Amino acid sequence: MQRQDLQSWQQSFLTLRSNKMFETVVIAIIVISALMVGAKTYEETSRYTPILNILDWAVTLFFLVEIIIRMLSEPRFRNFFRSGWNIFDFVIVVASLIPVENSETVLIARLLRVFRVMRLVSMVPELRMLMNALLKALPRMGYVALFMFIIFYIYGAVGSFLFHDINPFYWENIAISVLTLFRIATFESWTAIMYETMEVHPWSWIYYVSFIFLSAFIFLNMMIGIVLETMQKESAAHDIEQGEGEAADIKALRQGVDDMQTQLQRMERMLTKQQTPYDSK
Amino acid sequence: MQRQDLQSWQQSFLTLRSNKMFETVVIAIIVISALMVGAKTYEETSRYTPILNILDWAVTLFFLVEIIIRMLSEPRFRNFFRSGWNIFDFVIVVASLIPVENSETVLIARLLRVFRVMRLVSMVPELRMLMNALLKALPRMGYVALFMFIIFYIYGAVGSFLFHDINPFYWENIAISVLTLFRIATFESWTAIMYETMEVHPWSWIYYVSFIFLSAFIFLNMMIGIVLETMQKESAAHDIEQGEGEAADIKALRQGVDDMQTQLQRMERMLTKQQTPYDSK
Amino acid sequence: MQRQDLQSWQQSFLTLRSNKMFETVVIAIIVISALMVGAKTYEETSRYTPILNILDWAVTLFFLVEIIIRMLSEPRFRNFFRSGWNIFDFVIVVASLIPVENSETVLIARLLRVFRVMRLVSMVPELRMLMNALLKALPRMGYVALFMFIIFYIYGAVGSFLFHDINPFYWENIAISVLTLFRIATFESWTAIMYETMEVHPWSWIYYVSFIFLSAFIFLNMMIGIVLETMQKESAAHDIEQGEGEAADIKALRQGVDDMQTQLQRMERMLTKQQTPYDSK
Amino acid sequence: MQRQDLQSWQQSFLTLRSNKMFETVVIAIIVISALMVGAKTYEETSRYTPILNILDWAVTLFFLVEIIIRMLSEPRFRNFFRSGWNIFDFVIVVASLIPVENSETVLIARLLRVFRVMRLVSMVPELRMLMNALLKALPRMGYVALFMFIIFYIYGAVGSFLFHDINPFYWENIAISVLTLFRIATFESWTAIMYETMEVHPWSWIYYVSFIFLSAFIFLNMMIGIVLETMQKESAAHDIEQGEGEAADIKALRQGVDDMQTQLQRMERMLTKQQTPYDSK
Repeated sequence: MQRQDLQSWQQSFLTLRSNKMFETVVIAIIVISALMVGAKTYEETSRYTPILNILDWAVTLFFLVEIIIRMLSEPRFRNFFRSGWNIFDFVIVVASLIPVENSETVLIARLLRVFRVMRLVSMVPELRMLMNALLKALPRMGYVALFMFIIFYIYGAVGSFLFHDINPFYWENIAISVLTLFRIATFESWTAIMYETMEVHPWSWIYYVSFIFLSAFIFLNMMIGIVLETMQKESAAHDIEQGEGEAADIKALRQGVDDMQTQLQRMERMLTKQQTPYDSK
Repeated sequence: MQRQDLQSWQQSFLTLRSNKMFETVVIAIIVISALMVGAKTYEETSRYTPILNILDWAVTLFFLVEIIIRMLSEPRFRNFFRSGWNIFDFVIVVASLIPVENSETVLIARLLRVFRVMRLVSMVPELRMLMNALLKALPRMGYVALFMFIIFYIYGAVGSFLFHDINPFYWENIAISVLTLFRIATFESWTAIMYETMEVHPWSWIYYVSFIFLSAFIFLNMMIGIVLETMQKESAAHDIEQGEGEAADIKALRQGVDDMQTQLQRMERMLTKQQTPYDSK
Repeated sequence: MQRQDLQSWQQSFLTLRSNKMFETVVIAIIVISALMVGAKTYEETSRYTPILNILDWAVTLFFLVEIIIRMLSEPRFRNFFRSGWNIFDFVIVVASLIPVENSETVLIARLLRVFRVMRLVSMVPELRMLMNALLKALPRMGYVALFMFIIFYIYGAVGSFLFHDINPFYWENIAISVLTLFRIATFESWTAIMYETMEVHPWSWIYYVSFIFLSAFIFLNMMIGIVLETMQKESAAHDIEQGEGEAADIKALRQGVDDMQTQLQRMERMLTKQQTPYDSK
Repeated sequence: MQRQDLQSWQQSFLTLRSNKMFETVVIAIIVISALMVGAKTYEETSRYTPILNILDWAVTLFFLVEIIIRMLSEPRFRNFFRSGWNIFDFVIVVASLIPVENSETVLIARLLRVFRVMRLVSMVPELRMLMNALLKALPRMGYVALFMFIIFYIYGAVGSFLFHDINPFYWENIAISVLTLFRIATFESWTAIMYETMEVHPWSWIYYVSFIFLSAFIFLNMMIGIVLETMQKESAAHDIEQGEGEAADIKALRQGVDDMQTQLQRMERMLTKQQTPYDSK
């Protein structure tokens, strides 16, 4: 096969991939695949299992063909794996090809088919934007989560030391204590746990109230703050691109003031030039 | 009837519709209609049913007359149905006219009368503004809801596969699982559900904790972000209209800088003109 | 008594009222009064009742003297009642003077003494600022509350029609239904109520899920939006006063641009004046 | 020992303290110390107690050496105690050195070891930033907390007066009432408490609903407002430092406008100078 042939093939694959119709078909197949995953959770569908299995293989085959098309349409093969979404799609498709043998792998195969639904996020631009916003907020959120975990760890250790003998179900060791604290942070029947320990340690309400203040109030707010900050930056960046909104106005202002400064310098030079002859008279 | 007559009629209807008194009467009738709907839920009112029925017909008649007045006052009849609120009012009024025959339609007739209360939103400008703000946020919220639904669907399918046999009441199929997950997202007795599955799958707390983090923390924040963004744009637009606030200041600044640039260009031309004779001397 | 005497008296009262020491004493007495109110809720304090009653009268007397001082220190007597806080203080003090006779009024007298704690808000400037921020947000919050109430009313009527016979404890009439819906809006055991009605109407989960989305998600966010907006305006206004922050920068910019425009117009007039002789040459 | 020797020692300590490797080792030791605290909460680890005790003394010794190094590396000894984090570290290390004798102090010693985990916050810059943001929000949050406490106190006193005899477990005295109200503010089974008092006082739902509105809605929002405000100021300050973002644009604009004004004044003086000879001709 000649190089030119390859290029023309690539071109036609690229045309196909960019085709609106093709995109719609892919989204439809993903939705069908999602519905099939849902259908399998109904016991009534057990008699349709053969049909579902055939459909499942058809979907797997379609996804395999689709990913090969997308791979071949890439001018440079290595670029394909530069996108996180492509890697995700590739793993999902390849993993679906592994033959299912015993009951254990059936469960794994089923779970893999569930994750196909996530492909919808990579196909719809608006969802991909939302996902990117989430991913951008992740690094800073990570530190907040670490901070939160330190608070949980300290309270968990203290709780385990103090309340271990009162109710091991909630306070047996630090892992169980941290889970209990997560439950308290969601306000889930936390007073029952508190009243129990207050019978032995009457002042233990300080432990719970301070924890709720620290975790629920301060940290939740912090997370809201981070998400809002990220969204505002997103929105400001979008406004500048679109040439509208406050941020764009300010950019335009800066440009205007810069232009004026250049012009004024030009004018001042002229004035100075005018002045010099007068002074030298 | 002559064209002029029709126009004068239309004019008088328009005057009537714009009349503050008429508006107040309409709002009062809506409130009375709402109170009647409320009154019917009390069993003690069953002996007043004949009076309530007469009142109900009076209200229906009034609303019919009112909508006809509003239709006739419109210069062009087609414009009337351009407003979503007018269509809503029309449907409510026309549906009330359908005769009630058996017990089933009684329920539907009652429900229709309940929705009359919504007419209050179309009558009070401040409420209409709030409603518009909500409607504006809808498109973007739709994508967040779709994203959220994908997360719910995936967790629902996984939950149904893993926990189906533990408690079918919560995990029988994907629909019931998604309802259970909605319950978990509202922190409603989620630990009871978790402790139950942890007896079989000790690591299933990861499923719940990760789901709560994903749904409750990240997505709730996203929604807050969208609403805030919409409100800020609303408020900025309002500030510009009113000529006050930061956004208006920036608009005024831009105008000022633009004016200055025009003026400077004028001045520079004069200076250049001055300069030329000197240089050519 | 002569006019000059009165003025000098007024002056000394004004000095006393503005005295930092006097303010501290008033705050201390309010705190003591609050502690007494709290102490009375302990049964163990019943034997100290005579002492508490004497202290109570002392506090009442002190507040009476204090309000008279503040009234007399006012240059114009009518101005005193222009401040909402003064009216509040006056009502609390005067109501405390009504003699307590039977057991019913004892309760009312006790409740009145509780509201004395609110006087702390009027004494500490930072608390008064927070209170003002809240009061400023009230009008717009009122419309959101009205909107919310309409939603509650509609859902309450529908719930009462549909679920009346299933559990009258929750759905007997519209008033009880609205209380139940408020409970659902706080996520308080709402699933128990839902599962109960789902046995009769399997689709009733739509009623609950849609209500939770409408009330909890959208409206809560709206309220957050309003409070944030109010706080941002407050903070921007404060920044301008203090001459710092972004809003102050923009104000300064506008001033600067305005000054420059005036100056440029002056300069252009000069240039035009220069130009004219040249042209007329 | 000569002064020069001391300085060279100090220099080497300073080098050691700033060493990236040393920092990593300190963080690792803190994490190990945290894991040991966690391990002690497991009963299965009781047979490893001797090893844990040896490790514990090793960690204590390491922290002692580390704090001495940091103290000696300080050019001026007094500066060491100027940093709140240094004081915190010093207290934790010194308190660990107090010999443990009886069972009571064992608990305290254990709790002290838990707080060592907090040292992680002082070592990781991102966590220290988050902590600083929290501490900056504290003063204003203090007033909101005071305001909130006044509301809780008033409702607590009223609740204790009205509902004392209905259920002393929830309303015995003002302290217990305030704890009950905190529980209601977290929406924790608040309807059970309400339905109980509604049997005696049918209108008591007003007490609960108004309290929930006041506390949960308004105050929570206020706290969110404060945190957001603080974060926005932080982020704006950061933007200015980095020379990017809207706040930095506005700063640059101000600078530009100021420069232009100076230049215009210079130019106007020149023009005036030009004009004067013409006029005096």
